Amino acid sequence: MSDFNEIIEFIRAQVNKGLKNIPIPDTPRYLYDPIRYSIRSKGKRFRPILTHLSGRANNVDPDVLMNISLAVELLHNFTLVHDDIMDNDTIRHGKDTIHEKWDSSTAILAGDGIYTLAQIVLNQLPYNVTPLSKYFNNTTLDICEGQALDKEFENDQSITEDMYLNMIDKKTGSLLSASVALPMIYNGESDDRIKIYEAFGRYLGRGFQIQDDILEITSDSIIMGKSLGSDIQEGKQTMMVIKARDKFPREWDEMLSDSNLSDLMKNIPSFFESKGIIEETRLISKSYFNSSLDCLQRLDGIIVDELIQLVELIEKRTY
Amino acid sequence: MSDFNEIIEFIRAQVNKGLKNIPIPDTPRYLYDPIRYSIRSKGKRFRPILTHLSGRANNVDPDVLMNISLAVELLHNFTLVHDDIMDNDTIRHGKDTIHEKWDSSTAILAGDGIYTLAQIVLNQLPYNVTPLSKYFNNTTLDICEGQALDKEFENDQSITEDMYLNMIDKKTGSLLSASVALPMIYNGESDDRIKIYEAFGRYLGRGFQIQDDILEITSDSIIMGKSLGSDIQEGKQTMMVIKARDKFPREWDEMLSDSNLSDLMKNIPSFFESKGIIEETRLISKSYFNSSLDCLQRLDGIIVDELIQLVELIEKRTY
Repeated sequence: MSDFNEIIEFIRAQVNKGLKNIPIPDTPRYLYDPIRYSIRSKGKRFRPILTHLSGRANNVDPDVLMNISLAVELLHNFTLVHDDIMDNDTIRHGKDTIHEKWDSSTAILAGDGIYTLAQIVLNQLPYNVTPLSKYFNNTTLDICEGQALDKEFENDQSITEDMYLNMIDKKTGSLLSASVALPMIYNGESDDRIKIYEAFGRYLGRGFQIQDDILEITSDSIIMGKSLGSDIQEGKQTMMVIKARDKFPREWDEMLSDSNLSDLMKNIPSFFESKGIIEETRLISKSYFNSSLDCLQRLDGIIVDELIQLVELIEKRTY
Repeated sequence: MSDFNEIIEFIRAQVNKGLKNIPIPDTPRYLYDPIRYSIRSKGKRFRPILTHLSGRANNVDPDVLMNISLAVELLHNFTLVHDDIMDNDTIRHGKDTIHEKWDSSTAILAGDGIYTLAQIVLNQLPYNVTPLSKYFNNTTLDICEGQALDKEFENDQSITEDMYLNMIDKKTGSLLSASVALPMIYNGESDDRIKIYEAFGRYLGRGFQIQDDILEITSDSIIMGKSLGSDIQEGKQTMMVIKARDKFPREWDEMLSDSNLSDLMKNIPSFFESKGIIEETRLISKSYFNSSLDCLQRLDGIIVDELIQLVELIEKRTY
């Protein structure tokens, strides 16, 4: 294992330990059983890793980074729990989602509790947390807006690539930006520097989300397939769907209207493949990863090797 | 109109104006239309009024009180939006609830947004808000616990009066306590004084909630009736239900098993009335209102006339 992979594994293990050490009472079980289930589930922990790597590069106290990174991961977790209800997703990281294992009411309340815990963890810092808290809540509102746009876009055939990018900037990019920007706000860095980190997160978010949509199509795992099916049924927009509709409107409509769901799950990937849409979209994803790396080059005087390696690691992921 | 009623009307109007002036963007409409609908709906505004009255008595800056009171009202609003989904309530203050007018997904996201706005408003104070924010989030977690207990208690015939009181302390009392305690925390008052305000809020919450349960039974409005019906179907616990079950187990069971829903809605109130349960419960509610007034007497040097009058006003309410 390379030195860098060891660093990532170490941070991930520390974050998982931190999540496990958040004091969650035993009762009421209606609230805390699903919260425990959710925050101790597997996850890639990319967001807390981003916080630690950007903070390390700027010499931020590791204890502070731990609190910020746990708050960021809990915020992410909360949005997943509520989004899974709204999107009828039944599987997350190979396990039943909360609303599937329990019910929607339980999942609504668990999400509320997780978001509250996120802020309790953030407020534990021995410091005037108000600037961090402001940024944190503005990020949450951005994510809510992104989710609202995602819901509005369902079955809307007029969505353009720019509208799609604006949606993922809010839904995905804003939290990646916050993950790297919060340690900078703690450090009292200049607005210019914070803006560079935000742009880094936004580009990374675009690369990451577009890549995610491709992986859903090209991966042959059952879980991915299930998710693809439900996404299609709900008329979710992705870069590939928009391209297919724009460039091959007649053929795309024909395929969608002719097929039943199980046919669709086979035909859509081969449609994207044969029309060159996967390759084209892959290049777009790559260009955003490159843009995120360009941002890092603008951070004079900071050694950003670890963040560069993380971007490269994310770019190479296969699930 | 008495001077005191004029004060209350003035504060209510100011709070409504404050809620209306919170900058809510136009789009995405999926998120902001229901938020606007919800926070500009009617409401008694008891919680913000409590904040203003306790703060006035302690010479807290009115601008600070406005931010705290709006945050408290938004937190209340958020819990109502999510509770209404969980409890299948379709009417609130004479208007369709969000999940009824739109759908559950819309209501989940609107609630998330309203809670986020609550904290954004709190963080606008020109001050280190961390102590307030900590208290605020601990209150939210208490409310989540209260709602969890309420859900756990549904159809559980073993719930005692003490368990019920613990549930309403969390679900109702904690926010009333926070409404009066937050200005004291801002003021840097002693823990002892804050504890008195918290006890005041807790007793007021018990009086208020038990009174609410009585009003649902004795009020003949269609809205109240509808709510009673859904509460019974869901097996909700109230002080009166617990007393009926404890004191008249056989007759209570018989009535519940024999009747259809529309019969129940007539028979339950007359059961409570004829068995003296309404009168007994009314006295309990009254004793908690009195305990809340006793707390106020322990606040040496503070003129609490307005809070006393507010308790008396709440005690006399008929809806």
